[in-house]
Amino acid sequence: MIDYAARYGKWALVLGGSEGIGRAIAMELAARGMNLALAARKPEPLAATAGLIERTHGVRTRTIALDLGADDVIAGIEAGMEGEEVGFVAYVAAAEPFGEFVDQDLDAHLNNIAVNITALTRVAHHFGGKMKARGRGGIVICSSLSAGVGQHLWLSYGAAKAYGMLLGEGLWFELKRHGVDACTLMVSTTWTESFQRLAKKLGTVFAEGRTPPNLPPGVPIPQLPEDGARNLFAMTDGEWKPVVFANPDDVAAWQYLVGTPREEMVPAAAEWFGKWFA
Amino acid sequence: MIDYAARYGKWALVLGGSEGIGRAIAMELAARGMNLALAARKPEPLAATAGLIERTHGVRTRTIALDLGADDVIAGIEAGMEGEEVGFVAYVAAAEPFGEFVDQDLDAHLNNIAVNITALTRVAHHFGGKMKARGRGGIVICSSLSAGVGQHLWLSYGAAKAYGMLLGEGLWFELKRHGVDACTLMVSTTWTESFQRLAKKLGTVFAEGRTPPNLPPGVPIPQLPEDGARNLFAMTDGEWKPVVFANPDDVAAWQYLVGTPREEMVPAAAEWFGKWFA
Repeated sequence: MIDYAARYGKWALVLGGSEGIGRAIAMELAARGMNLALAARKPEPLAATAGLIERTHGVRTRTIALDLGADDVIAGIEAGMEGEEVGFVAYVAAAEPFGEFVDQDLDAHLNNIAVNITALTRVAHHFGGKMKARGRGGIVICSSLSAGVGQHLWLSYGAAKAYGMLLGEGLWFELKRHGVDACTLMVSTTWTESFQRLAKKLGTVFAEGRTPPNLPPGVPIPQLPEDGARNLFAMTDGEWKPVVFANPDDVAAWQYLVGTPREEMVPAAAEWFGKWFA
Repeated sequence: MIDYAARYGKWALVLGGSEGIGRAIAMELAARGMNLALAARKPEPLAATAGLIERTHGVRTRTIALDLGADDVIAGIEAGMEGEEVGFVAYVAAAEPFGEFVDQDLDAHLNNIAVNITALTRVAHHFGGKMKARGRGGIVICSSLSAGVGQHLWLSYGAAKAYGMLLGEGLWFELKRHGVDACTLMVSTTWTESFQRLAKKLGTVFAEGRTPPNLPPGVPIPQLPEDGARNLFAMTDGEWKPVVFANPDDVAAWQYLVGTPREEMVPAAAEWFGKWFA
């Protein structure tokens, strides 16, 4: 296992680190020798994940419970770091507004911008700048295949994920000459806690479990977060690319998504997603 | 000429309507019989464009000078409308931060988010909701080919434009069943006042004019804003598509952009743009 503490520094920071893909990424970083700072909203899941990481990998952890949408998010994170440098940062936190765009409360869209765009921008700017000055560091921005085309019911979410996708790949280019690695991690349907909560709330086929008996044709079984994180680190252990797909099958899906005329793809994506509610 | 006042309502609102593509779109709307409300930051260019529209097309105008990044932007617009309904809205205003991402002031990125994302979201949500309730309306969101791949030096701008691109095409899908037309207008290099100001400030080849004698191979001559607006209305006069390219040549450019592996396209786009400074 490659020693990321030697390569990037002692401490990694995972925003949205208490569950799902964030936790899986944190576990991979801990397996590579980094101490883990986990930031998310709720203290209890953070503490549980920190305990799991310590027991499994014997590294140090710290938890930072905060609202990522707050204007003083950087101050809150730095207070939680207590002077320790962040050598690797993974931005996995996400807000997920759901419903037709004009029918949702404006606040849902503003929170989507605050968490998926503004806080991401603050974190990438602050820690990216410090990493550039030090000449080393790693940045992973979690995006989604919903960034590929305007989404019915997930419109402002997918639009925000498109911002994150471009930010990660642009940072890959601008920072690599300064010794800093960056990339975008593209995920599709993943068997995370938030996915399961949403499936139950919305009554989709996945309310019955990860492999429901009545799964419609064309709807893939959600990936396990641990598999996505493993695929990410298969790349970051070597030479970083601007974009990595958590599920290698999604490379072809993405090309289909962006290669199809938009007037065909927008309705097709909506229809595909509609199958989940069948 | 099709009567847009009959189709969409008496008043159109153009955000960023005093110059460039916004002014060209406003002129096309006025030619189709709509009164024009123009919103932008500076009163003088707004008044000049309003005068031009009135003299040319004999419609009514109103000007709304305001900071689109302000939290009360919708209240400011509605105050300026003095009770008149907005039947058509074009969001063309843009902030254009320039430089390597981590080297710019955070405020430049926050302003990029405020103008290119948050204000757009407020406008689309507010007026889109009203149009849905009325069962008619038109929405055009101006995006950019920089939305296709993470941009060197224009990173947060392109990322914000990706948000806008998806928002426009998603609204096309969600609103058309309610009688409301929406689309994204994709523009590339256009001979606008802001483009010319930036060319002079940065000392690019276009500081010498629209067709500089030393234009490097592969760098296209910027489109005239009037030609872009004409291509937009060639579509909106008929059946709307989710995405329209201001320059038909850009359809192929876009497919090349999104069809090429990202690890090739990100450096290629940076190199292409670097030619402007040659």
